[in-house]
Amino acid sequence: MSGNRDTGGLIIDPFGATLVEDYDRLFTEFGIQPLKPLLSQIPNPCAAMRRGVIFGHRDFERIIDAMKSGKEFAVMSGIKPTGEFHLGTLMTAREIIYFQQEGATAFYCIADIEAYEDNGIPFEESEKIAVNNVADILALGFDPKRGYIYRQSREEKVKDLAILFSRGVTLATMKAIYGERHMGLYLSALIQAGDILMPQLKDFGGPKPTVVPVGIDQDPHIRFTRDLANRFQSKFKFIPPSSTYHKLIKALDGSYKMSKRNPMSYFTLDEDPDTIAKKILYAFTGGRPTAEEQRRLGGNPDICPIFDLYLFHFSRDDKEVIDLYNDCKCGNILCGEDKMRLVKIVVEFVKDHQRKKAQFIDKAREILGVK
Amino acid sequence: MSGNRDTGGLIIDPFGATLVEDYDRLFTEFGIQPLKPLLSQIPNPCAAMRRGVIFGHRDFERIIDAMKSGKEFAVMSGIKPTGEFHLGTLMTAREIIYFQQEGATAFYCIADIEAYEDNGIPFEESEKIAVNNVADILALGFDPKRGYIYRQSREEKVKDLAILFSRGVTLATMKAIYGERHMGLYLSALIQAGDILMPQLKDFGGPKPTVVPVGIDQDPHIRFTRDLANRFQSKFKFIPPSSTYHKLIKALDGSYKMSKRNPMSYFTLDEDPDTIAKKILYAFTGGRPTAEEQRRLGGNPDICPIFDLYLFHFSRDDKEVIDLYNDCKCGNILCGEDKMRLVKIVVEFVKDHQRKKAQFIDKAREILGVK
Repeated sequence: MSGNRDTGGLIIDPFGATLVEDYDRLFTEFGIQPLKPLLSQIPNPCAAMRRGVIFGHRDFERIIDAMKSGKEFAVMSGIKPTGEFHLGTLMTAREIIYFQQEGATAFYCIADIEAYEDNGIPFEESEKIAVNNVADILALGFDPKRGYIYRQSREEKVKDLAILFSRGVTLATMKAIYGERHMGLYLSALIQAGDILMPQLKDFGGPKPTVVPVGIDQDPHIRFTRDLANRFQSKFKFIPPSSTYHKLIKALDGSYKMSKRNPMSYFTLDEDPDTIAKKILYAFTGGRPTAEEQRRLGGNPDICPIFDLYLFHFSRDDKEVIDLYNDCKCGNILCGEDKMRLVKIVVEFVKDHQRKKAQFIDKAREILGVK
Repeated sequence: MSGNRDTGGLIIDPFGATLVEDYDRLFTEFGIQPLKPLLSQIPNPCAAMRRGVIFGHRDFERIIDAMKSGKEFAVMSGIKPTGEFHLGTLMTAREIIYFQQEGATAFYCIADIEAYEDNGIPFEESEKIAVNNVADILALGFDPKRGYIYRQSREEKVKDLAILFSRGVTLATMKAIYGERHMGLYLSALIQAGDILMPQLKDFGGPKPTVVPVGIDQDPHIRFTRDLANRFQSKFKFIPPSSTYHKLIKALDGSYKMSKRNPMSYFTLDEDPDTIAKKILYAFTGGRPTAEEQRRLGGNPDICPIFDLYLFHFSRDDKEVIDLYNDCKCGNILCGEDKMRLVKIVVEFVKDHQRKKAQFIDKAREILGVK
């Protein structure tokens, strides 16, 4: 609620709106903290922070301290190698790169064990996908010289942490957090805890503040890992990991969630730009049935995936996003022209990205040790 | 029941008696097969087989075929590095060495992950214990040139099999086999399945009959692993592992089971021979309260740990064991003299073993890669 009231109205604070409707319970029920009150203390907040896309956190104060004082800290997140980079994995990748540029040592995990346990993807297959994914993050600006990119299946330290942690975990805990799942998913959760705490092992310089930027759906892993960090405190001196939470971007077709089952609900960075353009042009919007009504009543950017694309990824200027929101609300802009402008931006970005990425495939193979 | 009836009476077939009383349900309820009907087909059965100490099996026919035809086969078992070699670990070690001498490639696993998960022993500590244990098995005759000794915590192939297998295992399966345990024990069971099936990986020459000699208490692991071998059949072409089951030797003090909590219930191969002698002399027996009664009524070797020591380990001659059984039953021998003779044999064996073992400590370090 605070989002709107602080800033005095719906139109001025577009980024808070979705937060209020969908995310408020997270603060009261799960102990996630809103990011907004900390925003002024963050030395150089990224667009997603400024716009409320990254809306919540746990213990982020610790990361701000490190950023301000120049103390060592780490950022850790990853990708499940099940397919091409899409708008969700792009979000996480950009967050990692942001924290790396702000001074963090960056850990990027290729969660191939999770891809196997959760999606049944054999390691031989996920290896190929991983090469592609790593080329993406390199093209986006990840600096491998100040970062560590690895596959879970090849990282013995991660597996060994999972083995150590497992002794501290009851079945009741697993069921409470993840429900009744097969052993592979439980093991995968333990390995993910290993991923998150590996940056604090001696081999990587010992205990340090670590931020894990994730979608809100990943919070169970964060809670689980923070609990393990406390339990194994005496042996490792772990600092409980901090986290930030971003909202999930809306599906292009107006459905509940972007999903591989529905190709019109999302696009990937590997797709033909013409196809991407079509998906955007066909997308669901918050517009009215007719142009006349739209001009008279205004559109609804709060439910609009096109607005989300500007908000999350494709507008560099906060002022532009606010203007867009208000212009839509007031009926000053129609969905067609809004989409056309977005198509141009997205197609240019994707073409540029694909060009850069082609040059990073060999480097990606080298980093992953793939022949 | 067949044991006694086949051979016509209690006195002639001492080895069958305990089997009938304690182990019969295993055949009817768990599908374990009695070894006795196969005995005549085994080219060179070891004493424990001939005496009914190894009393049951699963799919042992496959191993007999390999032994007879000279085809490749493996023996796999191990030790949980929680302490010194005792009469139980000695039993397994001798079985492995027997199969190795009969032509098997021998795999000896130091189950340090299990020692951690089940007993909370840190890896730094179990490493030292493992060096000691490996020196024991080398002194007993294990040939490292035709065998593979390894620690679970250092064997990536075993961990990777556990990760692969976990996807095929529901929580219901784990609970049915092991009860409601913590995650570490479940993970340990998956890793043990990895141990048992590792000999069939390409790196070790591919699928082959494998016999796992264990105490009957380990059968849940065997059933679990045989099930996994079938589930992952299409990928690995695993042959379901065979197993043999030995009885558990009676506790020296007449208590339910040899246990570290009660030092008088067992001895280890590292103990001072004088202490071992005392433990034997103080041991519980199947004897009568007085010598007169013993001569008149006879003793009861079936409940006697001293008889078990001859039967399991310290008599080289089957005829001698049968005579001892009958002489005890008929009151021809008293417990005191029986113990004195055993003390002499055991002390001589232990002194000789300790002398040999001292020469294998460096080799054990080398095999385990311990500095």
